[in-house]
Amino acid sequence: MFDGRFSDSLSNVRMSPIVSISEEVRKRAPQFTQTTGKKFVLFQRGEIDFSTPRYVVEAAKKALDAGFTRYPKSGGEDGFKDAIISKLRDFNRVDGLTRDNVAVTYGGQEALELSFKLFAGRKGAGFAPTWSCALENFIPYADIDFVEVPLKKDFSVDMTGLEEVVRDIAFFYLNTPQNPTGKIFSEEEVRAIVGLCAKHGVFVVSDEAYERIVYDGQRHFSPLSLPYENIIGCYTFSKTYAMTGWRLGYVATRNKRVIDLVRLGDYTQTAGVVTFLQHAGKEALENRVEEEKAVTAMVSEFQKRRDALYEGLKSVEGVEVTKPRGAFYLFPSFSALIPSGLSGQERTMYAYDRLMDKGVATVYGSCFGRHFGDNLRFSFSMTTLDEIREGVQRIKEIF
Amino acid sequence: MFDGRFSDSLSNVRMSPIVSISEEVRKRAPQFTQTTGKKFVLFQRGEIDFSTPRYVVEAAKKALDAGFTRYPKSGGEDGFKDAIISKLRDFNRVDGLTRDNVAVTYGGQEALELSFKLFAGRKGAGFAPTWSCALENFIPYADIDFVEVPLKKDFSVDMTGLEEVVRDIAFFYLNTPQNPTGKIFSEEEVRAIVGLCAKHGVFVVSDEAYERIVYDGQRHFSPLSLPYENIIGCYTFSKTYAMTGWRLGYVATRNKRVIDLVRLGDYTQTAGVVTFLQHAGKEALENRVEEEKAVTAMVSEFQKRRDALYEGLKSVEGVEVTKPRGAFYLFPSFSALIPSGLSGQERTMYAYDRLMDKGVATVYGSCFGRHFGDNLRFSFSMTTLDEIREGVQRIKEIF
Repeated sequence: MFDGRFSDSLSNVRMSPIVSISEEVRKRAPQFTQTTGKKFVLFQRGEIDFSTPRYVVEAAKKALDAGFTRYPKSGGEDGFKDAIISKLRDFNRVDGLTRDNVAVTYGGQEALELSFKLFAGRKGAGFAPTWSCALENFIPYADIDFVEVPLKKDFSVDMTGLEEVVRDIAFFYLNTPQNPTGKIFSEEEVRAIVGLCAKHGVFVVSDEAYERIVYDGQRHFSPLSLPYENIIGCYTFSKTYAMTGWRLGYVATRNKRVIDLVRLGDYTQTAGVVTFLQHAGKEALENRVEEEKAVTAMVSEFQKRRDALYEGLKSVEGVEVTKPRGAFYLFPSFSALIPSGLSGQERTMYAYDRLMDKGVATVYGSCFGRHFGDNLRFSFSMTTLDEIREGVQRIKEIF
Repeated sequence: MFDGRFSDSLSNVRMSPIVSISEEVRKRAPQFTQTTGKKFVLFQRGEIDFSTPRYVVEAAKKALDAGFTRYPKSGGEDGFKDAIISKLRDFNRVDGLTRDNVAVTYGGQEALELSFKLFAGRKGAGFAPTWSCALENFIPYADIDFVEVPLKKDFSVDMTGLEEVVRDIAFFYLNTPQNPTGKIFSEEEVRAIVGLCAKHGVFVVSDEAYERIVYDGQRHFSPLSLPYENIIGCYTFSKTYAMTGWRLGYVATRNKRVIDLVRLGDYTQTAGVVTFLQHAGKEALENRVEEEKAVTAMVSEFQKRRDALYEGLKSVEGVEVTKPRGAFYLFPSFSALIPSGLSGQERTMYAYDRLMDKGVATVYGSCFGRHFGDNLRFSFSMTTLDEIREGVQRIKEIF
């Protein structure tokens, strides 16, 4: 007899509120357009409006025609792993890895899900604001007791008290460039954080999904390039190559026991990553000429959008905005515009609702944890420059 | 400070011994060929030597060209779900399902992994022999206390005592057609088993991976066609369409709460199933003319191999073999050929080792649980008729 109580870890997971926001937009958009003659401006999604580069699509088709349709090798195909190792060496400056240091996964999602799962039932920490999916999915799925360490208002790291937190945890989740702030953690910050973790024997789960989406000639400093063994690097093809629907990613770490476990986890969950897509992933990484062309074109367009959105939001009186150096989000504070008497749900939804009523969709700050409830996340990965200007104009009309 | 103990569920999972067997074959094959001038006969693998039908490959390429490369819809694309619902209605005789009754997964693997996970920490049961991956992966991953209910020597169901077991569990795992026996559970058997489960409020996890691989004009009777709400049907494209490397499957059940949880689990683990592959899956199901052609050609070849291998093994004195009606395995007993004094590891490996020494690779019975240690699994999914004859000849030379 089953008592009706399904697994806690499945029951405690929630679908992202960003999905609910998009559903709300779909419902409200027709009425909004009818009344105003205008369209919704969609700043809420992390999707990308670029197409996967042609050379990657062709590589997938070629692998299909070549018949690479049989069971994948557990942990990843050798050729794909070799391409990953070369990329990590040349781009991330990570030396000395072999095939035993890499496991292929279904996107950064499975890389992170399994990395969190390694520490099931333990205590972890990370900076707040924190990517919503970590909070809503990976943490409850692995029953993690998670401590949010707030960044300062300008998103700089407050090292005070960090050691107290680190002393008491099994792993630290570090996401650079960061969603939702667009902050790139500097080499000095990364060294300091990893140094503290190493001192206390704490693992670093390093989420580098936006490693190639950086602006102003900045460079991503990869935590995994540091010599500490217990850094688990989580990578994805989704952002760099506009491959969100391909679900291709990998874990890399000097700790081979971790790779063994991630490989077993991926095998148990899925029996391995689609064989012919691994061939396409290899080509994505190895065709450096086409790669450079595609990434440069996308990032330079994103930089124009970032500039337009940053300048626009800065010009709204009362909005406090920090210029993002990477990823494709801004995370401004609307504190000064929210009536001081408001609290709880009313406060959380105040700015979000007013923008929504004007046909501007964003994500409210509480989706990213406990500490930045007065902020809104704006994504510019799906918006044209005209839409950005239109969105900013509408916000100015509200406040 | 991390104490070095990673998650139990990850640590308790093992890679399939079938993988180790294949590695052993790779190591021993060159020496064997050098000594004998002959090749290994590979009866150990569940891979398929057919190619994915051309029409499915072309559908995937078309979906890639059409730009279906963005994030998948959580739980599955609507068009793909509709195709699945039609297939379940027409082939499995399951009526009345809607999109809320289906969730797309990475193969039957993720369908089963998540179905077992629903009952994390609980007690389940299933017939022995049991598919090795359930024993080595899904059960430890979800920390299931699993009771093996032995089939009789001829693989018929022993209903005696089954109710005692069912009374005490949360779910029953039923795999039909069955790996490793090739048994198709008859409509009467399925009705009796599901009836017992329904009587005691026990879920049925119905693994129908081999639903289309059936011989002698037999028909697969789908447990999900019965009106009991708590049957969780797990399906895959791997076998029917020779799509093992595509990792495409789905869960279907009348219980919508289960679908919600599977959808959340799949989202957490992978962020959803590769978008353009779902378009290919839709075409695989909907192009009934091409489907029929491809499946018929493959199954009629498999039937020839089954006949050859069955007749061959039957002609080996001392080998007891039951004719499989589905899947692509035989699971003969070598009891009469194993010296009666042997026990433990020596007994387990006796027949397996002697075949291996002769260049015949199989899987030893203890991979499928506690009850059929004197049996060996022979797969004919990768062997030509000549190889089958050669394999049988060598076995005759041993005993």
